[in-house]
Amino acid sequence: MATVKLWTDAEAEADPRVKAIFDDIRATRKSDFVNNFWRAAANDPALLERTWGGLKAVMAGETVLGRVVQEMIYIAVSTANGCSYCVHSHTAAAKAKGMTDAQHAELLAIIGLAAQTNHLVTAMQVPVDPEFLVES
Amino acid sequence: MATVKLWTDAEAEADPRVKAIFDDIRATRKSDFVNNFWRAAANDPALLERTWGGLKAVMAGETVLGRVVQEMIYIAVSTANGCSYCVHSHTAAAKAKGMTDAQHAELLAIIGLAAQTNHLVTAMQVPVDPEFLVES
Amino acid sequence: MATVKLWTDAEAEADPRVKAIFDDIRATRKSDFVNNFWRAAANDPALLERTWGGLKAVMAGETVLGRVVQEMIYIAVSTANGCSYCVHSHTAAAKAKGMTDAQHAELLAIIGLAAQTNHLVTAMQVPVDPEFLVES
Amino acid sequence: MATVKLWTDAEAEADPRVKAIFDDIRATRKSDFVNNFWRAAANDPALLERTWGGLKAVMAGETVLGRVVQEMIYIAVSTANGCSYCVHSHTAAAKAKGMTDAQHAELLAIIGLAAQTNHLVTAMQVPVDPEFLVES
Amino acid sequence: MATVKLWTDAEAEADPRVKAIFDDIRATRKSDFVNNFWRAAANDPALLERTWGGLKAVMAGETVLGRVVQEMIYIAVSTANGCSYCVHSHTAAAKAKGMTDAQHAELLAIIGLAAQTNHLVTAMQVPVDPEFLVES
Amino acid sequence: MATVKLWTDAEAEADPRVKAIFDDIRATRKSDFVNNFWRAAANDPALLERTWGGLKAVMAGETVLGRVVQEMIYIAVSTANGCSYCVHSHTAAAKAKGMTDAQHAELLAIIGLAAQTNHLVTAMQVPVDPEFLVES
Repeated sequence: MATVKLWTDAEAEADPRVKAIFDDIRATRKSDFVNNFWRAAANDPALLERTWGGLKAVMAGETVLGRVVQEMIYIAVSTANGCSYCVHSHTAAAKAKGMTDAQHAELLAIIGLAAQTNHLVTAMQVPVDPEFLVES
Repeated sequence: MATVKLWTDAEAEADPRVKAIFDDIRATRKSDFVNNFWRAAANDPALLERTWGGLKAVMAGETVLGRVVQEMIYIAVSTANGCSYCVHSHTAAAKAKGMTDAQHAELLAIIGLAAQTNHLVTAMQVPVDPEFLVES
Repeated sequence: MATVKLWTDAEAEADPRVKAIFDDIRATRKSDFVNNFWRAAANDPALLERTWGGLKAVMAGETVLGRVVQEMIYIAVSTANGCSYCVHSHTAAAKAKGMTDAQHAELLAIIGLAAQTNHLVTAMQVPVDPEFLVES
Repeated sequence: MATVKLWTDAEAEADPRVKAIFDDIRATRKSDFVNNFWRAAANDPALLERTWGGLKAVMAGETVLGRVVQEMIYIAVSTANGCSYCVHSHTAAAKAKGMTDAQHAELLAIIGLAAQTNHLVTAMQVPVDPEFLVES
Repeated sequence: MATVKLWTDAEAEADPRVKAIFDDIRATRKSDFVNNFWRAAANDPALLERTWGGLKAVMAGETVLGRVVQEMIYIAVSTANGCSYCVHSHTAAAKAKGMTDAQHAELLAIIGLAAQTNHLVTAMQVPVDPEFLVES
Repeated sequence: MATVKLWTDAEAEADPRVKAIFDDIRATRKSDFVNNFWRAAANDPALLERTWGGLKAVMAGETVLGRVVQEMIYIAVSTANGCSYCVHSHTAAAKAKGMTDAQHAELLAIIGLAAQTNHLVTAMQVPVDPEFLVES
């Protein structure tokens, strides 16, 4: 169904750059599971390295927001971008990191509300209030 | 610049339904400032009532996420929807409610990262891993 | 496949707030069918109440556009937002409310045309003609 | 501000293909006004011809929906696509063709509602009810 | 699964306008395969004619970019619009026209990068540098 | 107008991490001009480093597509994402790197065409032809 090959573990083992990243994904997440996104990205080892590098730095590095809030923001962006895979994978990640049903419910309420007011603003072409501008 | 009239305070005073909502916005926010979105929505009092009602219930009601996290999720959705006014108004709101520069920076990093992986997923049409599905 | 539980009728019967909304959906639509969107929204009774309340007020309340035109606008928005479920459910609703094949065909033609000129405008960054601005 | 040149009337007069389309726009609309979109598209006469041809066929040809409904659907798509110019120009066109304030208000209400439920559906990944599928 | 009927070859044979376009698709592409998009568009012969006419003029007409680059741009737009069918069909077309794995990999890298910086720009509301404006 | 501060050269000089990246941008591009995107990203030096690192690797590194094609793909994504700044900056970059008017015109034609068929596909929910699926 994908437009690119999904790398199996055997194929990943045979490519040192891919193997190194798959190993690091497993070590960072303390889990043997490597999800399909990385198996697809593996077709371009440089892309795999850069993308995992960026993700690890933000989603597994120092955080002032905490892991659950990080994942909820990821879900919010993925929803507005209409990325079904991303909504599934980051909702699963958020739950695994401790998102409660009440947090999920409030997240959904804000996503729906923001979408509604976003579209009303665009349809009415509301001009930005001067009070909202950052002074430069 | 808007496609609808922006109601002045004088006009709002003259319509009991609009006045009631503008009063409630001021009371809820403990501020005299009514931003342009509500002045645009006032053209349809029923829409104004429903939209403010929904916003107040979520963004000023009970919360398990806290006010700053709520606003950051709002910014994330508004960004992905490309709503310039919404990004401005909710970034201002987030700062007013206490969002620090470090929190804003991490929010931006996640938004950029999510957009990148969202688009890669779509371009590669990555199939959802069975591990991510909710059992029904 | 959903990221939340879809409430069965038995579960809905056991929660008075959810039961009240499911009953109202059935009464308003004069049909026993409650589609999956409401079964998903039921996880947060307050969200269910607000969302159904807003939908009922607009899509089953007073209208100057008529039911078929309302549903066609809904389809147009859902298409541009890339929401597959929404396109399916509102196309079904439009047909149930009387949308003819000729109306559907003209709707599709406008959606395709608007998408084309929307993207050309954005790619060329066409400045708004002063003639299009609302005087304030 | 545009990324391409906006053709003046003098420049259009000097190119037979562009002149022919500008003349037809004026004749079709019974107005001397040629808005910026066409002045931008004129940089590629073949694109100008195809785009105007498609637009004229749909928006000025036979219609079962009527001119106002056509423009309202155009506004709905333009809003969801976040095209500011398009929202401005088609709101102006809708008003010129007779859209009332009540129709505009109902249009806005539906756009906001659809955006809200669209995003909720995506965030919850609601599966399509079998009842909504077209038999093939 | 579609919201409209997909025309079979037998049905297309029976409608002269649809038959003419299906014949031209086959002749232009030198292949007997007519993909589902055209079978869906056939429900409105005028739409079918206009859409195929536009596509043929651009994607099978004179080109300064070349067929592979054309298809890669199509994939880029389809990805950002979240159109799964379009990503599938144009990735298949790009490969059929000679897109190499290295070209596909670089395309994916740019798509991901552009999405990331697009969203950062929107979230930070970066003002356009005067250096980027076209003089008019 | 931005939601974050735009770093001046004086401020950048005072921060070694930001200075290093600004120096590298200037050296890589052989130009003294540092555009606003980087001045905004500088608020988070780690984000600045990662984002510039990714951009440099793709847009200034080895390429099989060539610089002009790379920028055209960037424009295509930016257009579909509705990012005005990005369309401006990458159109300027494409022209600086040699994009001709004929190439720009063909790019625009494809973007408009893709948007049109993308939305038609979504509105008709066209199922993916088995011929387009990659064997796994």
